[in-house]
Amino acid sequence: MSFTQSVSTHSARQDFLEAPLDRAHAESLQRQLYQRLKEGILKGQLAAGSRLPGSRALAETLSVSRNTVTIAYEHLISEGYVRADRKGSTVAALMRPVQREAQAENNAPSRVALRLSRIRSSPARSDTSTALRPGVPSLSHFPLAVWRRMLDRAVREASPAELNYGDPFGQAELRAAIAAHVARTRGVHCEPSQVIVTEGAQEALMLCVRLLTNPGDTAWVEDPGYRGAKAAMHAGDLRIVPKRMDEEGLHVGAADWRSRTPRLIYTTPSHQYPTGAVMSVARRLALISDARKHGTWIIEDDYDSEFRHSGEPIGAMQGLVADAPVLYVGTFSKTMFASLRLGFLVMPPRLLVSAQDALREMLRGGHSHEQLAMAGFIESGQFARHLGRMRRLYRERQHALRGALTRHLRVPHIIEGGQGGLHLAVRLPRDFPDARIAEAARQYGMAPMPLSSFAMAPALEDNGLVLGYGNTATELLDPLVKRLSQLVLTAGG
Amino acid sequence: MSFTQSVSTHSARQDFLEAPLDRAHAESLQRQLYQRLKEGILKGQLAAGSRLPGSRALAETLSVSRNTVTIAYEHLISEGYVRADRKGSTVAALMRPVQREAQAENNAPSRVALRLSRIRSSPARSDTSTALRPGVPSLSHFPLAVWRRMLDRAVREASPAELNYGDPFGQAELRAAIAAHVARTRGVHCEPSQVIVTEGAQEALMLCVRLLTNPGDTAWVEDPGYRGAKAAMHAGDLRIVPKRMDEEGLHVGAADWRSRTPRLIYTTPSHQYPTGAVMSVARRLALISDARKHGTWIIEDDYDSEFRHSGEPIGAMQGLVADAPVLYVGTFSKTMFASLRLGFLVMPPRLLVSAQDALREMLRGGHSHEQLAMAGFIESGQFARHLGRMRRLYRERQHALRGALTRHLRVPHIIEGGQGGLHLAVRLPRDFPDARIAEAARQYGMAPMPLSSFAMAPALEDNGLVLGYGNTATELLDPLVKRLSQLVLTAGG
Repeated sequence: MSFTQSVSTHSARQDFLEAPLDRAHAESLQRQLYQRLKEGILKGQLAAGSRLPGSRALAETLSVSRNTVTIAYEHLISEGYVRADRKGSTVAALMRPVQREAQAENNAPSRVALRLSRIRSSPARSDTSTALRPGVPSLSHFPLAVWRRMLDRAVREASPAELNYGDPFGQAELRAAIAAHVARTRGVHCEPSQVIVTEGAQEALMLCVRLLTNPGDTAWVEDPGYRGAKAAMHAGDLRIVPKRMDEEGLHVGAADWRSRTPRLIYTTPSHQYPTGAVMSVARRLALISDARKHGTWIIEDDYDSEFRHSGEPIGAMQGLVADAPVLYVGTFSKTMFASLRLGFLVMPPRLLVSAQDALREMLRGGHSHEQLAMAGFIESGQFARHLGRMRRLYRERQHALRGALTRHLRVPHIIEGGQGGLHLAVRLPRDFPDARIAEAARQYGMAPMPLSSFAMAPALEDNGLVLGYGNTATELLDPLVKRLSQLVLTAGG
Repeated sequence: MSFTQSVSTHSARQDFLEAPLDRAHAESLQRQLYQRLKEGILKGQLAAGSRLPGSRALAETLSVSRNTVTIAYEHLISEGYVRADRKGSTVAALMRPVQREAQAENNAPSRVALRLSRIRSSPARSDTSTALRPGVPSLSHFPLAVWRRMLDRAVREASPAELNYGDPFGQAELRAAIAAHVARTRGVHCEPSQVIVTEGAQEALMLCVRLLTNPGDTAWVEDPGYRGAKAAMHAGDLRIVPKRMDEEGLHVGAADWRSRTPRLIYTTPSHQYPTGAVMSVARRLALISDARKHGTWIIEDDYDSEFRHSGEPIGAMQGLVADAPVLYVGTFSKTMFASLRLGFLVMPPRLLVSAQDALREMLRGGHSHEQLAMAGFIESGQFARHLGRMRRLYRERQHALRGALTRHLRVPHIIEGGQGGLHLAVRLPRDFPDARIAEAARQYGMAPMPLSSFAMAPALEDNGLVLGYGNTATELLDPLVKRLSQLVLTAGG
């Protein structure tokens, strides 16, 4: 007898309660009964304040053990659907949720979220198929088989203890390997204890903002500049002041320092992103000196310094003078691969002392297997070998890109940067609007970035294209640039 | 002839410049010269404004090719150490950094950092050897060989495109697997598009705070409650208001709502951390209803709901009524292992619409291999199998812990929680101070947490111990509790 076929002399409530359960093992019966009762209470079929049948009676009606009923009742009691007193079990009075129309307007995002959503949108980072995208290393040249072996060994050899959170500052092996690597290649002066392993450069920037700033503090950023740094500062509710570059890099003078003193300065001195300017040593020393006088911290983002194509690598600001007020940020996103999400922050020792308790609350450690594999990759020399191969590849690709621009780009232009890295910036006359060219290029599977999209306060000369050559095959550069040059002409027409 | 042996008729400057270079290949010669010149400029041996020898002359003196000198000079020019004019190369005037004593006081951490560093310190999370620590699953029972196989397959089968950032919201396969899992086991109503994969629950909490609050906004938290939630809120500069629980869970009344309206409420309704209280359905419905009226968001942290030891699992608040103003947070830290750093956030659809641009700026995606392996682990049924085994293990361990407490703990006490999870809370009379007991226990390799350390405003009854049984072998529980009971008596003496 099903519920709908029930005899009319039964009350609807009784029908509901006494409809037979599907035959099954005890646990299933108990679950069915629990769900039936709960649903009845939530839908009002079992009215608030009404008494439930005794467990013995209901068990007999349903031909189940009394225990089945008791457990279902107890469970409803523990959840608050049912109240127990000396006389038995009563359906609890549940407050009904108000209707949707009475709902307060609570989907307004925070100021931070609003500001973040107004950062000009970039082509989705997840779209890897597009050519000329800046900031992507050659994915097909990564030695995945070697990495797979290293990762597998790390998982195999790890003790169960490695499954726990681990040191919030990162695996000791990796911190030591990073400290040695940046000392050797970048002139960074640090102990492994100063190295904090992060989720890429982005988490390192977030940590700097959270550790060092209060909402409303001022931060200077390079303009045009890296969008991710601005996102981290928006998240910290900072007042972001754009500063321009010239051929010696970030340009700030005495007048700037006389206005509101910044708490933070974000800079990419070894290869400004995206213009490629190299900050001169005089500027570096002056910036360090001024920052020191004013109690300002410098965040030095050394994002693609490993790929230096001409001359001696320029040493990091962090190691230029002793005890510089510099937080050095690095990433493996371009030297290994982005989805590895490994970066690092080198903290000044005296800041580490005052900030380490807070850092321990902010960081959770983890990713032990990946970190151990990365340490092995560095220590075995595989990392240096891969970097060497990639440096040659990127040099070749940049050369091909320059050649193609010379052959095909028939409008006046200036090529900037190129001493290192994975991209060139090409400035164009303002009659050839960069956003329009970039939009047209996407139709042809190309993803150059408009230079103006990197600027908070775009100047006239911030019209141009940022062209990535890291993940675009050398032989494709000529035909792509040929097509792109046609699109430039069309956009100007 | 070394530098120190040089003939005295030479000026020191000439000595410095003309000391022979180590014989080596061209690149090394060029690097040596570059470094010598740079060091001389930085140390003042080559004075600002002084002219460098012509490249031909210096090349002859040093017996190197002229090209070696030219490249070294060019490099110094590009870095700003040297200025080139029509007459030749001149040492640039570098501003000297000021001395350390002139340095402004800039190592004061932010307000957020100060507040975070004042959260009472817990035993280091990285210390896994200690028994009875709350929140740690059985590490030795994790099927690491299966996981290793899954991860290795994910790396092997991944395309080069998976090495890029990937979808900032997480791999599609994992989002779908999570949506199906929480719908089946927790009654959460969601589409895969609402699921955002995060770095454990902690990043999910951080995102909630950053998306939904402005500095100074009010947040209600359970007290005693989860420290990580407080850390996320401190990081957002929120005004944190502690709220008490009773036997029906978080207790807020009309008077609370008449005072400053919270923007966020953080709750662990299915198993309050650490007291184990289960929020009644009446309370859940009332909280949803009130939150809706006041434009408040509820963060439902369902941190160990998979380990329910008695009765039917309690469904999530998120799925209790349609369109509840609830952000549902889950983690794999306790169901898999903590160093995996995988958690997730289920967003209400209308919030997702307004917040997705901001979220795309905040998140970087990545960890594709781990996410694909996790999706495979769920879809293959390995996850459900592991959960089933762990549920039985933890039930057995909890039973053993309760038995040991009954046998050995000779002071009046109340055991709280235990309907699920990996820990029990044992309240003790206030003459037995919990911090002193926990401190004494650490000497014996045990890490129970003082209940009072979870409270912002500890009440008299917040004296006790939070005992984790997840990662402590069943047969050790009796001797450990015996020892701990002696320490309790001693602390009260």
